Amino acid sequence: MKAVVKIRPERGGTELQDVDAPTIKPDEVLVRVQATSICGTDVHIYEWNPWAQRRIGEKRLPQILGHEVAGEVVEVGASVRSIKKGDYISSETHIYDPGDLTSLLGQRHIGEHMQILGVDRDGVFAEYVMVPERVCWVNARSIPPEFASVQEPLGNGVYAVLGEDADVAGKSMVIVGDGPTALFATGVARACGVAKIILVGYSDFNMDIAKKMGADYILDIKKSTMEERHQFILEQTGGYGVDISLEMVGGEVPITEAFTHLRKGGRLTAFGITTEAAVPIDYNNWIVFKGAQIHGINGRKVFDTWYRMRGLLAGGRLDISPVITHVMALEAYEKGFEMLLAEPRLAAKIVLFPDHGELKAAKERLSEKRDMPAAD
Amino acid sequence: MKAVVKIRPERGGTELQDVDAPTIKPDEVLVRVQATSICGTDVHIYEWNPWAQRRIGEKRLPQILGHEVAGEVVEVGASVRSIKKGDYISSETHIYDPGDLTSLLGQRHIGEHMQILGVDRDGVFAEYVMVPERVCWVNARSIPPEFASVQEPLGNGVYAVLGEDADVAGKSMVIVGDGPTALFATGVARACGVAKIILVGYSDFNMDIAKKMGADYILDIKKSTMEERHQFILEQTGGYGVDISLEMVGGEVPITEAFTHLRKGGRLTAFGITTEAAVPIDYNNWIVFKGAQIHGINGRKVFDTWYRMRGLLAGGRLDISPVITHVMALEAYEKGFEMLLAEPRLAAKIVLFPDHGELKAAKERLSEKRDMPAAD
Amino acid sequence: MKAVVKIRPERGGTELQDVDAPTIKPDEVLVRVQATSICGTDVHIYEWNPWAQRRIGEKRLPQILGHEVAGEVVEVGASVRSIKKGDYISSETHIYDPGDLTSLLGQRHIGEHMQILGVDRDGVFAEYVMVPERVCWVNARSIPPEFASVQEPLGNGVYAVLGEDADVAGKSMVIVGDGPTALFATGVARACGVAKIILVGYSDFNMDIAKKMGADYILDIKKSTMEERHQFILEQTGGYGVDISLEMVGGEVPITEAFTHLRKGGRLTAFGITTEAAVPIDYNNWIVFKGAQIHGINGRKVFDTWYRMRGLLAGGRLDISPVITHVMALEAYEKGFEMLLAEPRLAAKIVLFPDHGELKAAKERLSEKRDMPAAD
Amino acid sequence: MKAVVKIRPERGGTELQDVDAPTIKPDEVLVRVQATSICGTDVHIYEWNPWAQRRIGEKRLPQILGHEVAGEVVEVGASVRSIKKGDYISSETHIYDPGDLTSLLGQRHIGEHMQILGVDRDGVFAEYVMVPERVCWVNARSIPPEFASVQEPLGNGVYAVLGEDADVAGKSMVIVGDGPTALFATGVARACGVAKIILVGYSDFNMDIAKKMGADYILDIKKSTMEERHQFILEQTGGYGVDISLEMVGGEVPITEAFTHLRKGGRLTAFGITTEAAVPIDYNNWIVFKGAQIHGINGRKVFDTWYRMRGLLAGGRLDISPVITHVMALEAYEKGFEMLLAEPRLAAKIVLFPDHGELKAAKERLSEKRDMPAAD
Repeated sequence: MKAVVKIRPERGGTELQDVDAPTIKPDEVLVRVQATSICGTDVHIYEWNPWAQRRIGEKRLPQILGHEVAGEVVEVGASVRSIKKGDYISSETHIYDPGDLTSLLGQRHIGEHMQILGVDRDGVFAEYVMVPERVCWVNARSIPPEFASVQEPLGNGVYAVLGEDADVAGKSMVIVGDGPTALFATGVARACGVAKIILVGYSDFNMDIAKKMGADYILDIKKSTMEERHQFILEQTGGYGVDISLEMVGGEVPITEAFTHLRKGGRLTAFGITTEAAVPIDYNNWIVFKGAQIHGINGRKVFDTWYRMRGLLAGGRLDISPVITHVMALEAYEKGFEMLLAEPRLAAKIVLFPDHGELKAAKERLSEKRDMPAAD
Repeated sequence: MKAVVKIRPERGGTELQDVDAPTIKPDEVLVRVQATSICGTDVHIYEWNPWAQRRIGEKRLPQILGHEVAGEVVEVGASVRSIKKGDYISSETHIYDPGDLTSLLGQRHIGEHMQILGVDRDGVFAEYVMVPERVCWVNARSIPPEFASVQEPLGNGVYAVLGEDADVAGKSMVIVGDGPTALFATGVARACGVAKIILVGYSDFNMDIAKKMGADYILDIKKSTMEERHQFILEQTGGYGVDISLEMVGGEVPITEAFTHLRKGGRLTAFGITTEAAVPIDYNNWIVFKGAQIHGINGRKVFDTWYRMRGLLAGGRLDISPVITHVMALEAYEKGFEMLLAEPRLAAKIVLFPDHGELKAAKERLSEKRDMPAAD
Repeated sequence: MKAVVKIRPERGGTELQDVDAPTIKPDEVLVRVQATSICGTDVHIYEWNPWAQRRIGEKRLPQILGHEVAGEVVEVGASVRSIKKGDYISSETHIYDPGDLTSLLGQRHIGEHMQILGVDRDGVFAEYVMVPERVCWVNARSIPPEFASVQEPLGNGVYAVLGEDADVAGKSMVIVGDGPTALFATGVARACGVAKIILVGYSDFNMDIAKKMGADYILDIKKSTMEERHQFILEQTGGYGVDISLEMVGGEVPITEAFTHLRKGGRLTAFGITTEAAVPIDYNNWIVFKGAQIHGINGRKVFDTWYRMRGLLAGGRLDISPVITHVMALEAYEKGFEMLLAEPRLAAKIVLFPDHGELKAAKERLSEKRDMPAAD
Repeated sequence: MKAVVKIRPERGGTELQDVDAPTIKPDEVLVRVQATSICGTDVHIYEWNPWAQRRIGEKRLPQILGHEVAGEVVEVGASVRSIKKGDYISSETHIYDPGDLTSLLGQRHIGEHMQILGVDRDGVFAEYVMVPERVCWVNARSIPPEFASVQEPLGNGVYAVLGEDADVAGKSMVIVGDGPTALFATGVARACGVAKIILVGYSDFNMDIAKKMGADYILDIKKSTMEERHQFILEQTGGYGVDISLEMVGGEVPITEAFTHLRKGGRLTAFGITTEAAVPIDYNNWIVFKGAQIHGINGRKVFDTWYRMRGLLAGGRLDISPVITHVMALEAYEKGFEMLLAEPRLAAKIVLFPDHGELKAAKERLSEKRDMPAAD
């Protein structure tokens, strides 16, 4: 089968190779990949940045890239019972250990003994991929592959917006950040009744998408100071600040921004990853005196988030086509990576298709919804 | 001032009279009524049905009718501090006792020692009304009076949909009933990300409004059996039933329906009032084995529900104009009552205006949004 | 191996037989039974009452009885990964289907496609039992087998007390019922900071145990009317009623009692099973106007409840020895059943031991704690 | 009346003076102080440290100190309705503005426009004090004044332990800190079913009290490294860390400690106040990847915390006498302050009595419970 393999510990260092399809294990299923999308993590591995060098390391190469996927089950292992041949699935990428304490308690997404698809084992940038039954999620057939494939980051957005308690209806929200997950979060917030959505961003390309996803106000950090933005937000919230603040960048400045705009007794989602080992936090004023609730958000609730996401997509509550800026053939993956590395930004989510017929169909579906940037 | 007064213990028995405006008390505010709307409770009092005879009784007459209101504060009592002259307010109708245990614990809407506006004291079908400061809610100025006035029943709909935990995003819901509050609930569910909304109704007039409010499926009890509806709902929910079921009628049959469609581990809102003293409940199968969560919903959370509702209305997330089927002059109240008593239904919510200029403006606003049934 | 087998569809109809030990399946484990206890469900099957006739039926006989167990893993199936030979486990008896929607959403205890140990498959009144890995719970070694064995009904008590949210600290509670699970619930409530515990019972034998388990007040239905008890409870709660009410009997009268004593805005646990097909409920006053939260409680949260229970037992927060009224050899099971069928009550929980040495050790442990009724 | 007045902006700078008793305002009540206790905040004001200089300032002097109180209502203002002459009350010290958004939403303890008793207005170290009706809490008469007086810090402990959701039963907990509130928290955790309580402290005097309050393990920072303590905690928690971590000191080191011991998916209470303007936080590992829930805890829930606390104290679930190390006459306040400023620690909570007869009775009550350190 065709597969995008990281073969050398260097920038790029990948090749489209012909490799053997995986041999089925008893508790796993074999999936024909219909669509797969490029994540920031894949870009890190492509770049072979320090995180990738440390987390993956030279020894595990060669390894197939990728973890976002939608496809059809073509074979199931001997002990598989809930997933059937022909099912249209996506895969949760946090391959939890069922015996982990967190798994036993219903927090499968943050296990101590968890594997990550495409990081700790071969990934999905291929014609076929094998995944354990327990991380398969059956998609509604009404959700097209280019949407089903991006549910892993979309699920991040759903979990980031809803937090631990899903209590958002009628509340106000600041989203600090304009990366793809922030764009998804904007659409989710709009779909779930967040009453006022203020996005703080910097990329003109992405902020334009945020508008389409339903942000009420977009504050461009190139054109205002944090203090000016804070004054604007106080005006918009009766002088109190927002009920919910989403930090989706990582780093001292955006974290400061997210806490600053939060009202007393509000909830802050901590989603962004910082490059600093430690971030200075005004612990007294941001957390204690503010009576803040902070939700650390990693991954997606397995499968609570997936269930809600399926409902939102299949019910037509959420249109994510503005974020799917490009669809391409799997062979064009290098072009995809290079677009995602460009500054200023040229793309949000890029979906790859191993099959050219399915790529064509996806292009047609997206064209119906909007003017899609050229791609292939 | 002009006021609609219940003067005789009989059907109708009301008169538009000239009465003295109330004299301000230290902890109350005087409100110039801009809009007031007719509730089912008002209809009961107009009809002077057994409930009204028992609850209000002949001795308290004469009493001014009405409790749904939006207006402008024109005078404040000596000890009033948070509400100012000129504020544009609506009134919570559950006038809670601040010393009640439930008030102390944040459940102000279900106090043991509570008064109801327009039931236990003079109401709002008048040019002016006096209400305690503690039940005043300041409206956003962008919400027109015909919307601000109906927030009491809309708040019922918000609370019924959100329940105690506001956890609805991406879930499926059955709404049993098609009265005005069920219609509001439909719009709220749609605005707050409920992914599939199935309404069970019987009035053609109201089910038509339900469609406009965002119901995905409307099941007409005149055209199907409960078992047929159950099969349809199982098909729509992967064979499990809905996550959330709203009972908004009251009575053995609709309660049976609401429990029947609920999935194991789901949540049922108990909102409808029954005429029977007791209802037979399949306690084992509907509650225990189902692991159901039942939320008894009475009134609105004070002021959590109001806060969210203001957000949804002011943010343009929720358009309730399809439910406001008629606007009229206060003097035409009898016509309003008779329309609401008609079978089959001819009206959903009717809003009355003491001032003819404000009525005219409301008509114009509503005309812009839709084809409004004739009214005056 | 020795096993207590139901062989004939009649009262009793059981025999201690020598049968083959189960042959291990890939995803199951073989457990040497150290202690097993008799549940009301076992008594129903022993009696062969209408429920047992319908639920189990003649066709499935012969079948080994029992489902409460503690023991040592002596063999694991080929695909078992989290449980090891030598582990000291108890078994969750709700054998969930991992692909069930409720399992996917973290509500494993109420699956649509679930099997019950000792009801839908061979049980634990034997020297060995085979159970799926996924329902094994590893006990702390500091918990003796006679305690570890009764964790299934104790878990009912934990879940009934804690409800869905575990929010009980400093609150007041009525427990309607004095069966073994109500006695466990009393101890759990006391251990978890319920500030006032009032138990409504009728068995002198069991109410005496309730006192030892920490009930503050015990109201004997033989000596007072429901109205008298209600007046007492109002006096004890500042005139409001209790924050939490546990219905642990089933039936119109105890359900009426449980709702009557509940304050507005309180929570009611629906745990008891009724013999009636339907129970008359004062829906308006008990649920809607009361703003009640009702939690249908079936089984135990898998494994949230087990985790907390292990903590409470191993931490010495909860001493359940007063409820373990008898320990016996497995061979004496008939005596145990007959004691549990006696009126008035003579026993609460009876634990059976296949091994005489382990029985002797259990007797010594219990003797240290209290005067244990004679047994075997 | 006698009152302890801060008269000069300097260390000490206080005098026991004869001043006029306050004149009653319409919505306030006059309380005869039976017991009042010394808080860390009072010590800051006594010391006149930089916080006190900034927060209170020279201009507001003279001002009566103190905010922890229990007493009898002797007069009520004209508009007071819920509190009656003769009521035995304590006062919430966060005097909330009822019109504040947080107050309207049920979060009265963290208002933007709030006053603090004894900081923003005259306090309670006096024979009489006037407080607004809305912050009065009626005590159970079975709670003695020396317990009722310390409910303000005890309420901190209750809120810190229970967090926002009161979900603690059967869980494991680390308490970082051994100040009076940490000691109270230890007792609350024990009373509310926390299954394993590990306290990290440094004062021999206070750690001895922590043992009496129910800590299972006490880790002395003078005798172990953080890494050693971490290993111990991992052993105690199956390798995962604790479910709940309470940070009750403030500062980089204890905050690091509290996060380090927390398991993935656990909850951290942020209660301690830091002296640093900002604290370095390992945002990725402590919050995001850990999926941590952080609850900023300030004050007490008004009145949810008070309600639970009354239940725990009146129900005999919680004995706080080990923390009340000293009772003294009000006149001896300087001795009390100096004891609290001593290093190493000599006292935990000190309660002052204006009336010598009431002081004598308190001493007798405490003597019955334990060997009380000499005082007066």
